[in-house]
Amino acid sequence: MATSDVHPLDDLIQALRRLPGVGIKSAQRMAYQLLQRDREGAQQIARALDTALEAVQHCEQCHTFTVGRLCAICQDESRDTARLCVVETPADLAAMERTGAYQGRYYVLMGRLSPLDGIGPRDLGLPELLERTAQDGVQEVILATSFTAEGEATAHAISEALKSRGVHVTRLARGVPVGSELEYVDLGTIAHALSDRR
Amino acid sequence: MATSDVHPLDDLIQALRRLPGVGIKSAQRMAYQLLQRDREGAQQIARALDTALEAVQHCEQCHTFTVGRLCAICQDESRDTARLCVVETPADLAAMERTGAYQGRYYVLMGRLSPLDGIGPRDLGLPELLERTAQDGVQEVILATSFTAEGEATAHAISEALKSRGVHVTRLARGVPVGSELEYVDLGTIAHALSDRR
Ligand SMILES: [Zn+2]
Ligand SMILES: [Zn+2]
Repeated sequence: MATSDVHPLDDLIQALRRLPGVGIKSAQRMAYQLLQRDREGAQQIARALDTALEAVQHCEQCHTFTVGRLCAICQDESRDTARLCVVETPADLAAMERTGAYQGRYYVLMGRLSPLDGIGPRDLGLPELLERTAQDGVQEVILATSFTAEGEATAHAISEALKSRGVHVTRLARGVPVGSELEYVDLGTIAHALSDRR
Repeated sequence: MATSDVHPLDDLIQALRRLPGVGIKSAQRMAYQLLQRDREGAQQIARALDTALEAVQHCEQCHTFTVGRLCAICQDESRDTARLCVVETPADLAAMERTGAYQGRYYVLMGRLSPLDGIGPRDLGLPELLERTAQDGVQEVILATSFTAEGEATAHAISEALKSRGVHVTRLARGVPVGSELEYVDLGTIAHALSDRR
């Protein structure tokens, strides 16, 4: 649906549609809002995108977002390298960290298995995960993917692959309410689920 | 809520929250999606924002978005200057144009009265609208704002201001949408269609 004869505006609306969950109607509303009432916000978004594209990379070891080669946690030699916690996103990693109950390291999948969205094991770096658990003296892999259908499927796939290699695999206990995303769970519940892991 | 120790990422998430209807959770999802799976899209959005901020202005006459001083419609001397159609957005203007049923000119409010959002008559350029109808030989102002509470309030405010100046004001008819079956139309619409029968 063409909205005007103004090409830069139509280009902006089309560009905004690349944001997940944003259709034509939302993209229009966003473009109008930015150009009409929040030009400063538009500049802020453009600058933040440029800066993030330039600066943000993946940690070579755990794959979370970071500005250097290695993230702060992977650089921290006081962390317990025998334990590796597998999470879906950097936000989930941050939630685990806020509990203060975990001193091991992480592996961030940057997603979860989702055949419908074309996200398979390779997109989540599962081959590298298997390699890393084999090399780095990892004794326990703690699966902290979401307790959703896709998160459980992801945990299951990782669990099967690791168990066949003799790695000790645990899963956060079901103290975490089923159907919820880790990031929104209160810290006490996450801490309990961690200590009750099986 | 800090999501990581990566400042450019947090900055991006904060920036994306300036988009209308985007909360912390959506902003995170957007930032991860762009950095993880759609860096090209991120570049496209940043470039489109820069270009639009640079190029897109308001038409001096009707206030719609345009790249020059005047939009194509305001420049078109074959349009009927005696009729002025008041719409909320450039998208509404485009919808009117697609009907092919209107040959007059427009005034684009770029919004509607919304006291809760702090959008008052001055933000919609109502003083300029009154001025324009007084100057340009406008004989009829057609109110084509939305048929929502805010759109109706906007139409009412404009109507009162113009009528007190002796301008002929009309409103798009309310009624049953073409092609729809009566039993599926909401009762309020049917009631209006009945009272507006002609
Ligand atoms: Zn790392
Ligand atoms: Zn114009």
